[in-house]
Amino acid sequence: MRERLANAGIDAMLVSDLVNVRYLCGFTGSNAALLIRADGKDAETPVLATDGRYRTQAAQQAPDAEIVIERACGPHLARRAAADGVRRLGFESHVVTVDAFSALTAAAGEQTELVRAAGTVEALREVKDAGEVALLRLACEAADAALRDLVDGGGLRAGRTEKEVGRELESLMLEHGADGTSFETIVAAGPNSAIPHHRPTDAVLDAGDFVKIDFGALVSGYHSDMTRTFVLAPAAQWQRDLYELVATAQHAGREALAPGVSLKEVDAASRRVIAEAGYADNFGHGLGHGVGLQIHEAPGINAAAAGTLLAGSAVTVEPGVYLPDRGGVRIEDTLVVAGSEDDTSDLLTRFPKELAIL
Amino acid sequence: MRERLANAGIDAMLVSDLVNVRYLCGFTGSNAALLIRADGKDAETPVLATDGRYRTQAAQQAPDAEIVIERACGPHLARRAAADGVRRLGFESHVVTVDAFSALTAAAGEQTELVRAAGTVEALREVKDAGEVALLRLACEAADAALRDLVDGGGLRAGRTEKEVGRELESLMLEHGADGTSFETIVAAGPNSAIPHHRPTDAVLDAGDFVKIDFGALVSGYHSDMTRTFVLAPAAQWQRDLYELVATAQHAGREALAPGVSLKEVDAASRRVIAEAGYADNFGHGLGHGVGLQIHEAPGINAAAAGTLLAGSAVTVEPGVYLPDRGGVRIEDTLVVAGSEDDTSDLLTRFPKELAIL
Repeated sequence: MRERLANAGIDAMLVSDLVNVRYLCGFTGSNAALLIRADGKDAETPVLATDGRYRTQAAQQAPDAEIVIERACGPHLARRAAADGVRRLGFESHVVTVDAFSALTAAAGEQTELVRAAGTVEALREVKDAGEVALLRLACEAADAALRDLVDGGGLRAGRTEKEVGRELESLMLEHGADGTSFETIVAAGPNSAIPHHRPTDAVLDAGDFVKIDFGALVSGYHSDMTRTFVLAPAAQWQRDLYELVATAQHAGREALAPGVSLKEVDAASRRVIAEAGYADNFGHGLGHGVGLQIHEAPGINAAAAGTLLAGSAVTVEPGVYLPDRGGVRIEDTLVVAGSEDDTSDLLTRFPKELAIL
Repeated sequence: MRERLANAGIDAMLVSDLVNVRYLCGFTGSNAALLIRADGKDAETPVLATDGRYRTQAAQQAPDAEIVIERACGPHLARRAAADGVRRLGFESHVVTVDAFSALTAAAGEQTELVRAAGTVEALREVKDAGEVALLRLACEAADAALRDLVDGGGLRAGRTEKEVGRELESLMLEHGADGTSFETIVAAGPNSAIPHHRPTDAVLDAGDFVKIDFGALVSGYHSDMTRTFVLAPAAQWQRDLYELVATAQHAGREALAPGVSLKEVDAASRRVIAEAGYADNFGHGLGHGVGLQIHEAPGINAAAAGTLLAGSAVTVEPGVYLPDRGGVRIEDTLVVAGSEDDTSDLLTRFPKELAIL
């Protein structure tokens, strides 16, 4: 982090985003800011500001930081940076609001320039270290085990509602060690499966339905993300064909993952399969996204993405084809991109992807 | 909303906050903005912008809005407002980031002024209508029933870990109809109970411990919030005294709730009890906060709050006393402030508050 600041000509960085604060110093409270100097005096001791509710917690979670108790965290640290002689103070222009920026400007005074430094911490977060991968793996294992239990226990059957299925799956994740859910579980049955981000309703699962389930477990702040689509017997031929198409596209997307490959090309590798089958207009979202301390983080894998895939980044691959009023299929895995072109990426979500007719 | 805009001399309002978008039009997607005109042409039809993932969902959830599919929602609506002749366009300066503001300014062009209008929608949200109170009540009932089951089932006992207790409570809320949890459940045993916002660990509950549980259920977007503190037998005299003190302070806070009372005075009514017992420094947070579509929303009830309590607002009352390395007690309810001074506020969290020694 300090190296990146120095390279950008920034004397110190004010980190306002709470996930970024957590990533850099370990503190998880709901009100905080962190000041990091690029070099010089005390550069190795970041200053963590938080309020009185978190006095004990901050000391426990961020033993390497100097802790300051102050409710207006950002302005306090901006004032402190100015007093310490910081001339160019980086700030998170993609996070700091217009009102908060006014307060920072006033606090920093005339001698200290606030410099836009959006995405600096997010870029660091893109590549996961071994500890982070271990937590992602635990999260994916909890999700795998929960879905296994749900299916083996007959939880996916005609007559149940989407909400009931979603709640059981969420309870099972907790039983398998999740601290919580990554996001509100999507259970979408029949025509609802054609809605990419459907929220569970009281709609009843019926014979012949697609049942699309998109869900994840949260373990120590790290998110898993997986989608599987089932058919409640009997499966029609159009359903088998649609499933096969999406599975082929998903495989192509996974195969395209390698360090140095352009993000656009990863998206295209999967999208091309769907387009060639004539369903280009029925796949209206990007192929995937980074996942870690947030369920959606860098990099985005889509047709408009700039940049390339980094070794050690954790991403999803999740093509889908949605036929309005009929049904849709999405298949999604979370993977860690290999360290070299010769290795294969590490599949964290291991629940089978063969069509299951229940 | 339109009346408030007209009173503020604003021609149209660009709503960027997703909770505010949901409140105003019902749409729950993760990328959206809403344009509302104060009067004139199409004033009664807000324009909802979202991206292609949400085409079907937006039409279902926001039938009264004109829906535009456009990934860059805010700039698109700013451009549209400018084209429609809007001269003063309100924006949420407490939500819009510095980078997003640059994009809005460019899109709005030189003829349209962006006017800070922070908190306009939040002020409307403060007073709940009957439908909102019904959902808050359901959320509080799910939490009550879950805690009842946990206690009656012997789930609070020496030998279990904080995490185990938290997970069981969260599962029970789902069984009792919650769509999810309001926030990560706090279970804090023994000395950990002295940490106001402790996250559950593998710490084992022990005889003689305080066990502080702060949790809530989410129902159709509405949050409940409740804290109860138990003692695992045997209870020491200092624990009984501390509990009694906090219960008295909490009662005083609830009694102070009435429309028109200053928020500071509500806080003081409870804080005074704790201060007179010599524990002023051990109650380091505000007395309460509004609750609704967000777990923390207007009004804040604390010593620095401006303004008065509004009839029909939903708030928490949650004094606590925390003795470092020994233990702490917090007792919290969610209530709806009565419509007149003569009525009593409506207690939504009904789990008993007498000291329970388990």
